[in-house]
Amino acid sequence: MKLSVIGAGDVGTAVVELANDYDHTVTAFADSTSAVLSDDGIDSEAIIVKKRAKEPLGKSDPSSALSADYDVLIEATPTTLDDAEPAFSHVQEALERDRHVVLSNKDPMALRYQEVRGLEQESAGSVRFGATIGGTLPAIGTLEDIGKSHVTSINGALDGMANFILSRMTAEGLDYDHVLAEAQDLGVAESDPSFKAEGTDSAMKALILANLLWEDQEYTLVDVTVDGISDLTGSQLDLAREDGWTIRLMVELSESSVRVGPRLIREHSFLAPSGSFTAIEFETEHAGPISFTGRGTGGIETATMILSDVNKLPPN
Amino acid sequence: MKLSVIGAGDVGTAVVELANDYDHTVTAFADSTSAVLSDDGIDSEAIIVKKRAKEPLGKSDPSSALSADYDVLIEATPTTLDDAEPAFSHVQEALERDRHVVLSNKDPMALRYQEVRGLEQESAGSVRFGATIGGTLPAIGTLEDIGKSHVTSINGALDGMANFILSRMTAEGLDYDHVLAEAQDLGVAESDPSFKAEGTDSAMKALILANLLWEDQEYTLVDVTVDGISDLTGSQLDLAREDGWTIRLMVELSESSVRVGPRLIREHSFLAPSGSFTAIEFETEHAGPISFTGRGTGGIETATMILSDVNKLPPN
Repeated sequence: MKLSVIGAGDVGTAVVELANDYDHTVTAFADSTSAVLSDDGIDSEAIIVKKRAKEPLGKSDPSSALSADYDVLIEATPTTLDDAEPAFSHVQEALERDRHVVLSNKDPMALRYQEVRGLEQESAGSVRFGATIGGTLPAIGTLEDIGKSHVTSINGALDGMANFILSRMTAEGLDYDHVLAEAQDLGVAESDPSFKAEGTDSAMKALILANLLWEDQEYTLVDVTVDGISDLTGSQLDLAREDGWTIRLMVELSESSVRVGPRLIREHSFLAPSGSFTAIEFETEHAGPISFTGRGTGGIETATMILSDVNKLPPN
Repeated sequence: MKLSVIGAGDVGTAVVELANDYDHTVTAFADSTSAVLSDDGIDSEAIIVKKRAKEPLGKSDPSSALSADYDVLIEATPTTLDDAEPAFSHVQEALERDRHVVLSNKDPMALRYQEVRGLEQESAGSVRFGATIGGTLPAIGTLEDIGKSHVTSINGALDGMANFILSRMTAEGLDYDHVLAEAQDLGVAESDPSFKAEGTDSAMKALILANLLWEDQEYTLVDVTVDGISDLTGSQLDLAREDGWTIRLMVELSESSVRVGPRLIREHSFLAPSGSFTAIEFETEHAGPISFTGRGTGGIETATMILSDVNKLPPN
């Protein structure tokens, strides 16, 4: 299929890098200042060299990627919260043109779910958003496969950076601030990590799962009870560990309630992933728990999930 | 969709029990001696009472379930090995009638994979076999989603009974024979467990995965190196445990080779599930490992996977 990729961070760039390998063609690629277009496929290698050298991607206006010739719009701009813009308008324009949309940006499905579904119903295009839960974790696809009405609850440690920080705090007995500074020095954590540590990243993922699971009601950020991990101390983790427990920033969905916060988890449990792995568990109506773990962050990892979503779309 | 269910063991019976709950209608249900048919849907509750009382399911010949009015044939007869019969002929008849087939019987895709794919190509019907790997473990669906060409190796502890026996041996320091006798007393293990303990069950699952992963060559039982677990002693497990290891009966696929045998696995590793849980890990080309665990045996569990496969089929 022909892909137009909007957003040239780690995820968008990795999609451009991998698309050929998945038998797709990138016909447009835009960041916030310019776009490069080619109906036969852009020269991905040359463009990525430009991108790394911080040169403009191309000579066209960024918005030309929206009106380009493509089958699937890949929306990989950064999450902005608030009114889900500009991602929402990108989704709208693609669906109004009867094109498919694959999202890694969490805004539209977390904050304006029903509006997106409404636009999708009027369109010959479909929306897929497996990559919004992060990296390779196949949470959305599994929820579709099991069947929403047969899932009774979901628990997940869905924030890879929080898992990384908590596993370091446990291993070294250090406080949050100390480990965070170290992670920033290593380039693992963003310079403004509050989005993750305060639980907002987990809350956005929880909202997407809740909106999909309980589609007849719409959840927004005010419906999520959120506690972050920035107040945790190394000694709290030490105390937990003495009894075989550890702490993870958990997303919990059950009986129409959505919560995010630090929880005690068995130290060797599946739901206490270390490093930047994330994990999720679905409790099913008939068949017990089904659990997954994988790399929950990273440009390449998230790009492979985007391309897996592209492969699930019907031909245009 | 209209389902014809062939095989009235735990799996087939559970499909009949759950079908309505998944918005499907069972129009035929057969065991080896009789069949019950109804174009409007059989009376599932009444039939299951009959089944439990060991009365005949109905007055029709078992083969009438194959010529009945249905969209999807559910093939849930027991695995027989050898020439994959009668399951192969059931698949053939359904595909020749342009009907879909969903399998829990492992024979056709393990032993006659290319023949089934050939029949499928000539048919308007499709074959799905997610339930052949056992219970809720979404191994086949995930392999499809990641894309076969992007999976570099697969490791799994896919035999729930072997995992159950090995976790009991570890917990109690007992030998294989002792734990097996206990499991048989409890009704957890079959009276003839050699199919599983000798690794044949794992080998069949490995063959299905290999045939799907490397579709240009055909694998049969002679291509699989198989060692079972019946010679393991409690003291071997004790020795392993002293260093933080345990033993599981593993399926290993990599670089076109297929092996089954007892392997040392880190004690708290994801790949050392306990009880009757099974686990699988896919190593991917670009995105590291993706791992799953769930209940890998059981009638209800396998039936939910069958019904999830039915939901993936296009309308007839």
